[in-house]
Amino acid sequence: LIIGIDVESGERHFSELIDGVLRSTSKLTDIKINIIGKKNNILSNYPNLLQNKQILLTNADEVVNMDESPVSAVRKKRDSTVVVGTTLLKNNEIDCFFSPGNTGATVASSIFSLNTIIKSKKPALSASFPSKSGHETILIDIGANPELTEDNLFNNAILGLAYYSILWDKPYPTIGLLNIGSEHGKGSKILKNAYDLISKIPSFIGNIEGYNLFNGSVDIAICDGLTGNSIIKMAESMTAFFMETISESFSVKDNKEIMQKLYPRFFGGAPLLGVDGLVIVGHGNCTGKDIENAIELAYFLHNKNYIIRMRENIEKLISNT
Amino acid sequence: LIIGIDVESGERHFSELIDGVLRSTSKLTDIKINIIGKKNNILSNYPNLLQNKQILLTNADEVVNMDESPVSAVRKKRDSTVVVGTTLLKNNEIDCFFSPGNTGATVASSIFSLNTIIKSKKPALSASFPSKSGHETILIDIGANPELTEDNLFNNAILGLAYYSILWDKPYPTIGLLNIGSEHGKGSKILKNAYDLISKIPSFIGNIEGYNLFNGSVDIAICDGLTGNSIIKMAESMTAFFMETISESFSVKDNKEIMQKLYPRFFGGAPLLGVDGLVIVGHGNCTGKDIENAIELAYFLHNKNYIIRMRENIEKLISNT
Repeated sequence: LIIGIDVESGERHFSELIDGVLRSTSKLTDIKINIIGKKNNILSNYPNLLQNKQILLTNADEVVNMDESPVSAVRKKRDSTVVVGTTLLKNNEIDCFFSPGNTGATVASSIFSLNTIIKSKKPALSASFPSKSGHETILIDIGANPELTEDNLFNNAILGLAYYSILWDKPYPTIGLLNIGSEHGKGSKILKNAYDLISKIPSFIGNIEGYNLFNGSVDIAICDGLTGNSIIKMAESMTAFFMETISESFSVKDNKEIMQKLYPRFFGGAPLLGVDGLVIVGHGNCTGKDIENAIELAYFLHNKNYIIRMRENIEKLISNT
Repeated sequence: LIIGIDVESGERHFSELIDGVLRSTSKLTDIKINIIGKKNNILSNYPNLLQNKQILLTNADEVVNMDESPVSAVRKKRDSTVVVGTTLLKNNEIDCFFSPGNTGATVASSIFSLNTIIKSKKPALSASFPSKSGHETILIDIGANPELTEDNLFNNAILGLAYYSILWDKPYPTIGLLNIGSEHGKGSKILKNAYDLISKIPSFIGNIEGYNLFNGSVDIAICDGLTGNSIIKMAESMTAFFMETISESFSVKDNKEIMQKLYPRFFGGAPLLGVDGLVIVGHGNCTGKDIENAIELAYFLHNKNYIIRMRENIEKLISNT
């Protein structure tokens, strides 16, 4: 397993991310990491880096900035970390590509280099939420595609189903459509149409609400990219606020058992579902610890035959609906 | 100040809600509560209720159920708690109406009975989020209107501004548009158009993300009703999950100072902004404690001349943009 890690396009300095990489390689001795970034610059900070047999280094001189228009930036910056990374993945020089940069650019570059598994369909990102029962709910889409249409919502349901059964080895995970009320007929016209489309899937349980994300009552929650992105970022910020406020009086952070329950299994990286390759997207403020989690996710999914099973699952689901 | 409380259309038994009312009247001795529900039934549970000089009781034989289509239910059930309550408010027999029932029905009945302050504009609901600094952010809309259009988002900005200055006595609160990234040009076409419309307001700070809801960096966060509803319900469920998990080892709930920081000032009730009267919407699972909070919110807003100032503020804002 070789994982390509873009260490340049996040908001933090590459050294924090490389330190995370080095912690991972010392734990997982059967993987290699191909670090993608400004080679000379990285080597002047880490002169002995390539003496580590688990580390490769690929030069990429450019970065797509957070405020650039994704499609035109990816077309123009052929030597950017995302274009270099997705091209390595396409050429089977790496098995997984991770980037904490401009999400739109990672999505666009992944589509250009790798294509989607079903040509016309848009990819989506998913995140997991913990619950009291230990059962995780995945939310999809959390920001690959902000356009709210019934077709996109149906597509998110297919991608979520295909992915969940790999993540948790559960053949018929339940699906709910995030709406303003649980009753049938709630919400806008687009949501009503999406409800009818997703009803073709036997494990669809109907509309769900924000309440359902943390109580373990559904496996897969479907929404548009704006709603999902706002929810996931708000959850991060709320967690930080809670932790800081409670830590004024209680040493919660030192209690490993509690901390493990409060965070999902693979916090920090979201697979870009639907593209024909294993691409993991991190948030812009990605830390070394997030890199370690993303590498663990890549390791887990690779060992589960992620991409072969995604192709099979999606084909089966599409032909059944 | 007379506050009408619909005790029938929530998910909990009316006695829980009436107990909350009675706790409030013993704290706030200068208010009256007009309890709206099935009179005989309530009196057989509380035979001495009307000996309390702060309590009135208005009969309403019907309830709009959670799964009914709001507009047709409100047209048909003329003796339902929401129609009776909004009619009392229209006739100045009460100064505020609270309902924990079907939100769509409360919205529809409020529009029919009271009209909106600007005729063609839809009302919206707002909720508050706490932050480390003690500064609260309001999110608007949290579910009055699930249709995502640029006009609705602009309208939510006007309503949010008009309301925030009453809530916090701050004349130029900052406004942000909830989007998938903070940079200009992010998001769907509707969000880009909304950005341009809201840019006419001088205190607009641009796009914001879910992160901004708990860090006190913006006063008013604008979004559509589906996104806002999902966020607020998810926040409730996440809070419950955190509290339960942490309480396994730490007695956080007994620490009043921490608990006050973790919850917003008026948790449990959201004013229906834009209708020409003070209507407060509770969630379906509304408890007696939520009733107390909603009564405190009504008391606070009434003393701030809520409806007169909403009319003035909206008129001023519309003529300035």
